[in-house]
Amino acid sequence: MRALQDMLRTHPRGASGIDMQALNNCLAACHECEATCTSCADACLSERQVEMLRRCIRLNLDCADICAATGKVLTRLTEPDGGFLGEQVHVMAAICRICAEECERHAGEHEHCRICAETCRRCEQACQRLAQGLHAGSPR
Amino acid sequence: MRALQDMLRTHPRGASGIDMQALNNCLAACHECEATCTSCADACLSERQVEMLRRCIRLNLDCADICAATGKVLTRLTEPDGGFLGEQVHVMAAICRICAEECERHAGEHEHCRICAETCRRCEQACQRLAQGLHAGSPR
Amino acid sequence: MRALQDMLRTHPRGASGIDMQALNNCLAACHECEATCTSCADACLSERQVEMLRRCIRLNLDCADICAATGKVLTRLTEPDGGFLGEQVHVMAAICRICAEECERHAGEHEHCRICAETCRRCEQACQRLAQGLHAGSPR
Amino acid sequence: MRALQDMLRTHPRGASGIDMQALNNCLAACHECEATCTSCADACLSERQVEMLRRCIRLNLDCADICAATGKVLTRLTEPDGGFLGEQVHVMAAICRICAEECERHAGEHEHCRICAETCRRCEQACQRLAQGLHAGSPR
Repeated sequence: MRALQDMLRTHPRGASGIDMQALNNCLAACHECEATCTSCADACLSERQVEMLRRCIRLNLDCADICAATGKVLTRLTEPDGGFLGEQVHVMAAICRICAEECERHAGEHEHCRICAETCRRCEQACQRLAQGLHAGSPR
Repeated sequence: MRALQDMLRTHPRGASGIDMQALNNCLAACHECEATCTSCADACLSERQVEMLRRCIRLNLDCADICAATGKVLTRLTEPDGGFLGEQVHVMAAICRICAEECERHAGEHEHCRICAETCRRCEQACQRLAQGLHAGSPR
Repeated sequence: MRALQDMLRTHPRGASGIDMQALNNCLAACHECEATCTSCADACLSERQVEMLRRCIRLNLDCADICAATGKVLTRLTEPDGGFLGEQVHVMAAICRICAEECERHAGEHEHCRICAETCRRCEQACQRLAQGLHAGSPR
Repeated sequence: MRALQDMLRTHPRGASGIDMQALNNCLAACHECEATCTSCADACLSERQVEMLRRCIRLNLDCADICAATGKVLTRLTEPDGGFLGEQVHVMAAICRICAEECERHAGEHEHCRICAETCRRCEQACQRLAQGLHAGSPR
């Protein structure tokens, strides 16, 4: 996501108060995770024993939806609301972890689940690093 | 969203453990809020004094994205993960409240902001009622 | 989608050159179709013989994605590009028809497929009526 | 999007009848274009003379929505419908071109518009190459 990094660098507001490296890493992980989860849901759907992969498909779809929405919100630098961003990033880390755990259960059998689990874990970690910078732990 | 209610009623899993009326209300509010926020962002963009509405547009876009993703996740009844659902609904309530507060600031001048603020408030409340049913307050 | 109708009625640009009744009908059908397709994909995923429903799930997901995107584009009245809108509405009608045909094959067995097929057909027809108003048949 | 390439390579169906290199290129261009258009809409919204950028913001949002939906549809290899894919890719190329033309008008003044125009053009070309492989020119 080199082009997106260049976009954020040339944004008129700049990223005041946000750790730009953590943001770039998180956005790249987020787009990658959304793509692999969309693909893993579809690959699972084509597997011979699809009935064993219902939960995996469901979580893949959820994770792709949350990553897509969070990626959009994080891309916007105009008048940010740090508190809300932190909460959404926290929830994204949660669904990435839950989806990774499910994919890991099938990683031995299905190479696509193994790859998808890895991208979910990368995204979970990138979220956690970004959330620290956003002071996500503010009281609710 | 009568058709969606009929879909959920005929789902093979049923909605074990979820308050179906709260779910239907929340999904209807969620779709309505996503639509009005998408429209309010665009209406604001066409206003003569668009430079006064930057924050409103930004929050409308965020709220539409989060409502769309949460609506998808809530629609799925296959192997649900109650804890995650509760957290996501909680975050959706937060962005609906933040967006409503901004739209309310322009409600006197722009009828579209007034209508949008009302749908955001309805969605916030529908989220809160659903979250109670999902035991969203589980420790994290 | 009464609130969305109110939003479009109060939009500063108005809907110059677009048949507002056709647009409102199409947007309502579009949101309904997106919701029922998302639900039908999930209901199929929970069916005992999910392996018979792979194509149905895949098309439901496609149809939901295209309806969501087209609904967003159609909601925007700021500086519209009629030619592009017509083409996108035409493609949405196509995926609604393809998805309806697949759901109809399972309508006898699965009530959710019957309901979903009906909303896809309604959306296909609403698209066709709107496309006529948009002069979608312009040469490409 | 190396991880997505790995996913498609390990998909149980394979990509029968699709030019995998053209597909990978198109998916990478599609994700990049969706990200830069989302960012360009937001950067334009923060510009001092936002009232000159209404059409650019509107088209950026449209282009991001269409790229996101088309990217999802193209990622799915389960029981593909070549005719529909070709039509959707054709429409995506159209919106990428329209958005690129608008961004190019502001490229001298706004670096983000220059970068975004380039990613839109790359995506338009990747779509055209993929569409050739999908025999998009089938009669409608």
